[in-house]
Amino acid sequence: MAKDMITERSVDYSAWYNGIVKHAGLAENSPVKGCMIIKPYGFAIWEKMRDQLDKMFKETGHVNAYFPMFIPKSFLSKEAKHVEGFAKECAVVTHHRLMNDPNGDGVVVDPTAKLEEELIVRPTSETIIWNTYKDWIQSYRDLPLLINQWANVVRWELKTRAFLRTTEFLWQEGHTAHSKQQEAIDETTMILDLYAKFAEEWMAMPVVKGVKTANERFAGADDTYTIEALMQDGKALQSGTSHFLGQNFAKAFDVRFLNEGNKEEYVWATSWGVSTRLMGGLIMTHSDDDGLVLPPNLAPIQVVIVPIPKPNEVINEAVDKIIADLKAKGISVKYDMDKKKRPGFKFNEYELKGVPVRIAVGKRDLAENKVEIKRRDTMEVSNASLDGLADHIEQLLADIQTNLLVKAKNFRTELTTEVDDFDTFKDVIANKGGFVSAHWDGTTETELKIKELTKATIRCIPLDAKEEEGKCVFTGKPSNKRVLFAKAY
Amino acid sequence: MAKDMITERSVDYSAWYNGIVKHAGLAENSPVKGCMIIKPYGFAIWEKMRDQLDKMFKETGHVNAYFPMFIPKSFLSKEAKHVEGFAKECAVVTHHRLMNDPNGDGVVVDPTAKLEEELIVRPTSETIIWNTYKDWIQSYRDLPLLINQWANVVRWELKTRAFLRTTEFLWQEGHTAHSKQQEAIDETTMILDLYAKFAEEWMAMPVVKGVKTANERFAGADDTYTIEALMQDGKALQSGTSHFLGQNFAKAFDVRFLNEGNKEEYVWATSWGVSTRLMGGLIMTHSDDDGLVLPPNLAPIQVVIVPIPKPNEVINEAVDKIIADLKAKGISVKYDMDKKKRPGFKFNEYELKGVPVRIAVGKRDLAENKVEIKRRDTMEVSNASLDGLADHIEQLLADIQTNLLVKAKNFRTELTTEVDDFDTFKDVIANKGGFVSAHWDGTTETELKIKELTKATIRCIPLDAKEEEGKCVFTGKPSNKRVLFAKAY
Repeated sequence: MAKDMITERSVDYSAWYNGIVKHAGLAENSPVKGCMIIKPYGFAIWEKMRDQLDKMFKETGHVNAYFPMFIPKSFLSKEAKHVEGFAKECAVVTHHRLMNDPNGDGVVVDPTAKLEEELIVRPTSETIIWNTYKDWIQSYRDLPLLINQWANVVRWELKTRAFLRTTEFLWQEGHTAHSKQQEAIDETTMILDLYAKFAEEWMAMPVVKGVKTANERFAGADDTYTIEALMQDGKALQSGTSHFLGQNFAKAFDVRFLNEGNKEEYVWATSWGVSTRLMGGLIMTHSDDDGLVLPPNLAPIQVVIVPIPKPNEVINEAVDKIIADLKAKGISVKYDMDKKKRPGFKFNEYELKGVPVRIAVGKRDLAENKVEIKRRDTMEVSNASLDGLADHIEQLLADIQTNLLVKAKNFRTELTTEVDDFDTFKDVIANKGGFVSAHWDGTTETELKIKELTKATIRCIPLDAKEEEGKCVFTGKPSNKRVLFAKAY
Repeated sequence: MAKDMITERSVDYSAWYNGIVKHAGLAENSPVKGCMIIKPYGFAIWEKMRDQLDKMFKETGHVNAYFPMFIPKSFLSKEAKHVEGFAKECAVVTHHRLMNDPNGDGVVVDPTAKLEEELIVRPTSETIIWNTYKDWIQSYRDLPLLINQWANVVRWELKTRAFLRTTEFLWQEGHTAHSKQQEAIDETTMILDLYAKFAEEWMAMPVVKGVKTANERFAGADDTYTIEALMQDGKALQSGTSHFLGQNFAKAFDVRFLNEGNKEEYVWATSWGVSTRLMGGLIMTHSDDDGLVLPPNLAPIQVVIVPIPKPNEVINEAVDKIIADLKAKGISVKYDMDKKKRPGFKFNEYELKGVPVRIAVGKRDLAENKVEIKRRDTMEVSNASLDGLADHIEQLLADIQTNLLVKAKNFRTELTTEVDDFDTFKDVIANKGGFVSAHWDGTTETELKIKELTKATIRCIPLDAKEEEGKCVFTGKPSNKRVLFAKAY
């Protein structure tokens, strides 16, 4: 039973999370500190996310390219805030050769192979890309440049958690260049909408779209937009960010263009990214004490068929027909014919792995022209006729996708509290958790003070926050809209 | 004109190659020594290659995963030949933090952030993967493990060429584990066949399948199988390799399993890879003095439509219909409506980019119910009726795909010479170029001596080499099959 392997959420949420990651076969720690191994099942989910995002980027006019993973150290320094933000977590390449250890076995760094200038393993690629854009952009005819890259990046982390915070992670980073400020701002928010759409329609993970405070902004951005999701333990997860970079990188790398009036201007920039962190969000939005729960749109196996008690000719023939009908609808299906494992064992295994629908096919049921169906999200068991079974399953998968989103939205609604005094604020953050919607006076000082006292940070100023006269929950100073506070991953 | 931008092949093949890479928009050098930037058009071709290969791997039972890009230095030393092969070209990470330069501007490496053990940026992943397989494999039931990874790797190179030899490159690396020796050997050759099929059917690049001599073997392999292609300048290109690793890595990392008889054995291994080097092979197999030539199966744009002389309502309406018909057949098509460029300029641009088919649509032709078609491979121009145009284009694309392969095969046949004496050998290698099929006595000594005298290496012992009594072309010692020599990239 999954329950024997995985700590229950109510006992220890963090141990539960690690249990899901391990026992569903998603990832594991590697011998390299802070770097994870993404196992085949976990990677198959990530591939589905990546392929869908890639399709959405291309549909909105973006193209992919690839830039070097190494960044000359001096590049990083060119944008003052950028280097400040990343210098402390850089993996630095200093040598390019090993040699036999003159004093023993093995190999040591060859001291004669020291690099003239150290190379940084990219923590993000603004610097190397804007250094390149300088050559690619001369006139407004070269704009906009709408480029994305799928890549690995490295940010040295001391405390790591599979998917949520790892030293090396996989992501995509979009880097666009525009001739007009408004066009760059529109790109930033268009991508934010795209991320939110992906999160809701594919991950069934509701998100709040908002803008970050100055204190939480990306290092080098004028504005950072974010999608924030709420995990089951009441903590927020920053799930994707889209940055309006103004002309900061254009100025740092001297990227100018001739506008239509033949005058020279600096180029306007955006950058945006989502990463394997989304896998953590997916796990913590839907999964339960029985294991992973996957929305059908991202499940590598959408339907598993288990013969009861073992495969035989009658069952196989019926299953072949079911498989053909499901595949004709583009539904991915696995038939588990392993004779060494008992049905109950298989049931648990696929529940642990979050397969949305299980069909049990037994001889007795077949004689009655039916099969048994279990949906992973609600664990409901029902019988279904063999007639029109594929249509029924197709509808069931759509229902599960919808149900997961509705459930997550309801959870978020319950865990979003409007608060107007600081005592309640502290109490809600400490005991109930979730998003606290409160007035804030707009200063970094207040923001940091609240963080110090409660560990809650401002997740975002929601884009749809309504104008409302109010007083800062901490200082009592005037405020005209509520912001969202929460403890966060 | 392309001819003004690109050096002709007959003048300077190397300059021609660089010209194609640059002017077709495939890649460019980066400020990081030896690392290239893959530009959007080049990356779109690579994506097509990657997607097709990925499909073929999955169809043959492989799954993708992701392992850390950093390898602890000590891991590399565990397999003696492996470390010998890679130690001299390793990028080494020694520190994990930068700090403000106390003596000036910018940042310097923080000396207090030195790693306990240096990390190597993977030159290939056998060591970290076999260290992991140790935990994943206990019994024969865990086998085979058929895992592939798409990744960037780094091998420090002094002399680099876009795609052909770069410090960082993109590739896939398959790493499989088996319970039986023969099963691992079968996997090795199955993958070799898969690579050859991909090269011929998708790249239209004929390859010779063969096995490497001991001297040219992968560092740590018992046998290396290879596909070798012949470039237009008569030099060979090793285009993909598949290694039977025996039990070498299993022994180095102590990976044992309980076999069906409940006895402990070491696991058998393979690894195999192709890389962005294939892009170089693609360029040098088909392209000409007018630019890139792409096989339709890998062309990001298969058909380009150019309005003559400019788009207008009548033309646009006809083009809309053509586009719809082509898209319905899954053909990718671009309509270049740019009013600022003249048709002749566009013609050259798409020829330079290797678009297989160009359709010119003019009002006068339309009045006669026809369009003008030019195929890139032969540069033939013809007229085609609007009736059944999509069928015609579909057939034309298939013809181009076939023609490119036939042409390349004929070229290779012409440039493959059977030689039985060393004077002729030297003459052919020095003047005619291409593959020289000759007898060899099987010793590394002779192989190296021939290389020293002629710069030709043994590309492979072809798998289909027939048994034949003969004498080594250099030493006169007996030999029973011919091997293929060539100068190589």
